[in-house]
Amino acid sequence: MSFNATEFQLYLDHDNYETRNKWREFTKADIFKPRFDISMQESKHLAFERLKVVAENKVFSAFDFLKNPLNVFANHEMAGMVDHSLATKLTVQLNLFGGTVVTLGSERHLPIAEGIDDLSTVGCFALTELGYGNNAVEMETTAHWDQKTKEFVINSPTVLSQKYWITNGALHSNYAVVFAQLFIHGEHVGIHAFLVRIRNKDMTLRPGVFIEDMGHKFSSNGVDNARIKFTNVHAPRESLLNKYSDVDSNGVYQSKIPKKRERFLRVADRLLSGRLCIAAMSISNTKSTLCTAFRYASKRLAVGKTGKSDTPIMDFQLFQNAMYPLLAKSICLNVALNQIKTIYSQNAVNEPTMDVIRFCCVIKPMVTWNLRDVATRSVERSGGQGYLSCNRLAESIGFAHSGITAEGDNSILMQKVAKELMGSVEKKEYKLPELTQCPMRELPNKEKISDVETLLNLIKWREISLIKELGKVSYEKMAKGGTFYDVWMKEDNYLVQGLALAFGERVVAEFCTNELRLCPSGVRKVLDLMVRTYLAHVVLENLSWYLIHGTVNAKAATELKSTYREWIHEIHPQALNIVNAFGIPEHLLTAPIAQNYEDFNSRPNQGEVFKPKL
Amino acid sequence: MSFNATEFQLYLDHDNYETRNKWREFTKADIFKPRFDISMQESKHLAFERLKVVAENKVFSAFDFLKNPLNVFANHEMAGMVDHSLATKLTVQLNLFGGTVVTLGSERHLPIAEGIDDLSTVGCFALTELGYGNNAVEMETTAHWDQKTKEFVINSPTVLSQKYWITNGALHSNYAVVFAQLFIHGEHVGIHAFLVRIRNKDMTLRPGVFIEDMGHKFSSNGVDNARIKFTNVHAPRESLLNKYSDVDSNGVYQSKIPKKRERFLRVADRLLSGRLCIAAMSISNTKSTLCTAFRYASKRLAVGKTGKSDTPIMDFQLFQNAMYPLLAKSICLNVALNQIKTIYSQNAVNEPTMDVIRFCCVIKPMVTWNLRDVATRSVERSGGQGYLSCNRLAESIGFAHSGITAEGDNSILMQKVAKELMGSVEKKEYKLPELTQCPMRELPNKEKISDVETLLNLIKWREISLIKELGKVSYEKMAKGGTFYDVWMKEDNYLVQGLALAFGERVVAEFCTNELRLCPSGVRKVLDLMVRTYLAHVVLENLSWYLIHGTVNAKAATELKSTYREWIHEIHPQALNIVNAFGIPEHLLTAPIAQNYEDFNSRPNQGEVFKPKL
Repeated sequence: MSFNATEFQLYLDHDNYETRNKWREFTKADIFKPRFDISMQESKHLAFERLKVVAENKVFSAFDFLKNPLNVFANHEMAGMVDHSLATKLTVQLNLFGGTVVTLGSERHLPIAEGIDDLSTVGCFALTELGYGNNAVEMETTAHWDQKTKEFVINSPTVLSQKYWITNGALHSNYAVVFAQLFIHGEHVGIHAFLVRIRNKDMTLRPGVFIEDMGHKFSSNGVDNARIKFTNVHAPRESLLNKYSDVDSNGVYQSKIPKKRERFLRVADRLLSGRLCIAAMSISNTKSTLCTAFRYASKRLAVGKTGKSDTPIMDFQLFQNAMYPLLAKSICLNVALNQIKTIYSQNAVNEPTMDVIRFCCVIKPMVTWNLRDVATRSVERSGGQGYLSCNRLAESIGFAHSGITAEGDNSILMQKVAKELMGSVEKKEYKLPELTQCPMRELPNKEKISDVETLLNLIKWREISLIKELGKVSYEKMAKGGTFYDVWMKEDNYLVQGLALAFGERVVAEFCTNELRLCPSGVRKVLDLMVRTYLAHVVLENLSWYLIHGTVNAKAATELKSTYREWIHEIHPQALNIVNAFGIPEHLLTAPIAQNYEDFNSRPNQGEVFKPKL
Repeated sequence: MSFNATEFQLYLDHDNYETRNKWREFTKADIFKPRFDISMQESKHLAFERLKVVAENKVFSAFDFLKNPLNVFANHEMAGMVDHSLATKLTVQLNLFGGTVVTLGSERHLPIAEGIDDLSTVGCFALTELGYGNNAVEMETTAHWDQKTKEFVINSPTVLSQKYWITNGALHSNYAVVFAQLFIHGEHVGIHAFLVRIRNKDMTLRPGVFIEDMGHKFSSNGVDNARIKFTNVHAPRESLLNKYSDVDSNGVYQSKIPKKRERFLRVADRLLSGRLCIAAMSISNTKSTLCTAFRYASKRLAVGKTGKSDTPIMDFQLFQNAMYPLLAKSICLNVALNQIKTIYSQNAVNEPTMDVIRFCCVIKPMVTWNLRDVATRSVERSGGQGYLSCNRLAESIGFAHSGITAEGDNSILMQKVAKELMGSVEKKEYKLPELTQCPMRELPNKEKISDVETLLNLIKWREISLIKELGKVSYEKMAKGGTFYDVWMKEDNYLVQGLALAFGERVVAEFCTNELRLCPSGVRKVLDLMVRTYLAHVVLENLSWYLIHGTVNAKAATELKSTYREWIHEIHPQALNIVNAFGIPEHLLTAPIAQNYEDFNSRPNQGEVFKPKL
């Protein structure tokens, strides 16, 4: 099996090739060379300097949300293969802060908004509070309208109401989008977003703003995460981002959104695109991690037949079984993410449908958990080299964890997916996956289930069954006086999580099998192998469920296992070509194990790949 | 269910209470307070200063290998809950270096050996080479006997023959145990170990010794890992550690071990105890990780029934399902490790039996993989707080990875386990697990399999079946002209890995169920719950295998799943008591989330829990 590497790269890159090519060029500069043994202060300086170079190259714009949303994600994908701290700072500047100002602001915010692209405005997104990371709608920060000064007065009344983890906050922001419970003449009208100046021109703090750097972190120490407290911070009337709600100079509040909860959801809208941003930067990082690990495995020699070290570890089934299923899964997630980004960008930047909400909420967990697994196994299968920072595999574990938590904890998002899904089912607004075979009748007698159609049917069938099961369990328990809350949170959460994942796996599987028809011809064969392997992997991961439910019999299960192993075998001759066709430029594959690690180790290096001129 | 917390702690601590209590006292000193935003240089200094305090307290001795081997492991367990870098430096000083010198040396090495306990001798273990981490027996470093000077001349002839990852090497060692291919008058006699002075009294390097710090790492940056190259380094005749082999002043070589390969295995003996050391420091770190995560979960509030943040996340099934199976598994691994340490210490320090080799090689992977999972899930379930270094959950992911790789890559060790096991089976020296029920006859008709006896039988049955299957597959393929190497490494490695894990799970399950009879009464009930949950977990992890093989039917599988959930539910009221009964002193539970994180966040802290006096 051969495939067209360039076509494959363009296919996975999907859009905004010009942006991507510019990144591939300007990241050749020395400033993008990774540095390891530097202080936290230097790390933060470096990440910001890198962000400045990105901005100078005019590859991103906060106004892309209105013109070319796919370009927002393209920038995240490129950043994800360069530097995690840069990517994190970028996503806050461009999506959470920039996107919010552009999509929720109006004419009066334009002067500030126009500074976002060239970093004359640097922003942070002050939503999360120490005590309410898992329940933002209950946040404690308040904004009281002061009729006398015609200003909002913002306060963090408690320790738990401190804004927490605020990227760009500790050093570089001059503005913050601050979320607060708004009170007009004492009346609570819900959470609103304010564009607040937090630093003066000389970067000293504005009165009433307390900011502290959060200190050392698991990873991405180039990000200036802050704790922020507000004490009687005065913000002008115009600071309110007023697309949906506004206060006039007489202190009269008006909103296009009647419900308070709805008001919050609309102002926090960039969390939704944020999930695609996190997925985008994680998927590209997954690809560079795989590329580094596979290149090393193709050169690293271990015990061969005669006992000599003459056999690349990539030739061992141990490596193949550990890594190739993840390769297939990563590519399928990439393909599905491209579809979801497109759907989101076409019609959902402002008014996301339930479908789009579920897609965004399920793909971020799937991609970030996969990055965690890819990075974990890559480190492990690279032995000691995986532990050296300069080889850049281990840092992706930390990056995955920040993605797992950011823009909504993965498992909590999965609960949201299941909840929205069951809600739509109840309202008869959910289109159940369509089966082309009827599993309960036909499948149990099948002795061979390892064709794409059958596998896809099995995956769809599982989603349908879990919808029914969760529906039935909830209904029965609530009929007996149980509460929805107890059923979902305390008694049957495993079903909730199971359904959300089954939904996500079906979505990815369906997007990918569709793509087998639609993709360019030079890509089809390799994509077919990836998709087959992924579908089989999903079914095998849930094999006991299928066996218990009688959808698959023992013979078919055994057949699938054996076919799956053949497919992994089939991947082997192309595995290195595939990761090399990800289009990660050599200058970004800085890990010595991705290049010539023997040469690297032939000279003093102190574990660094780059020595800056002093 | 109640239990006696003190008895539980003493039961898990198992031995050398005096050593443990001393550690619990002297670690109150400020020097043991964790520091995060410090330079690599400071980290290394700090780890060594801590090691000095440990030595001053005379809790460990390299001579414990001859007198009280369990005390070696007790020290590792205590170090594992204090500081990863300290633990790593300690294990090299005490086990790899110290243990090797004490057990392979003789009278003539005594002056140097006697300095190990008070650190007047600080040592490193120069075995691993850049190119031969996975095949040490093929190492390239040479020692040529020079009859003229009556010395050995040691050389690293190639880039790949550099000693790599050598803990204590970059800064603190004055001695190294150097492994090299020995040539006597040009004749190769195999790998031998030499006790070589590498630094002078003033800590300058000895002639011909090139040492470089390896630079920044994923974690444990307080460890001074080195790359070391030797160029015509002269070592006196007496430097040869001569328990098994020696060279007299006439250059006549003698060895008690005829085979070269055997000579290598015997001089690398401390790798075996080293696996128990790694397991020991990892199991205690697992316990402190669980304790921190559970304490936070018991206080961290999230959405309750009314929407307010009033419910601890520990009350959610999401947390319970993620963490309680790992709690049960961790305790079972701890119990099994205690048994294995005891067996090793009683009769295997010098001449390990096959049983002991398999135990040591299987328990290190199981414990370190479990720590990886515990740390990963603890970070994730603690949200943003898990990402802050001061909460000390994330660092355990890095520590787990160093354990996964050190003293033999986990998966390679698992291959060794399977190989030794199948070798013993072939020689009819392997005692197959004894079944008290005949699964193939009785179990498929059982509708209830959730009792300890049945679960244990199922686990044993799986090991027996996999032994047969791997035997059959190997035999058939080799009968058809296949090679053992291809079958094991390229075609059926999944079976090899599967068997090794099935063996390990059976060993742990069997030790634990035995302990249910032998353990103190105040511990029995809680241990019973942990063991039941672990056994069910193991069976459920392999459920599709049981279903395919017809050992378990769909009804019994469903029953087990439901009982398993009940057991998790049963753990809940005791979970916090259990982790608090691990006996980790409060002064070592420094994570703000393990104490009062609201208080910590009420004042400036820069992410540090301790501010040293300048």
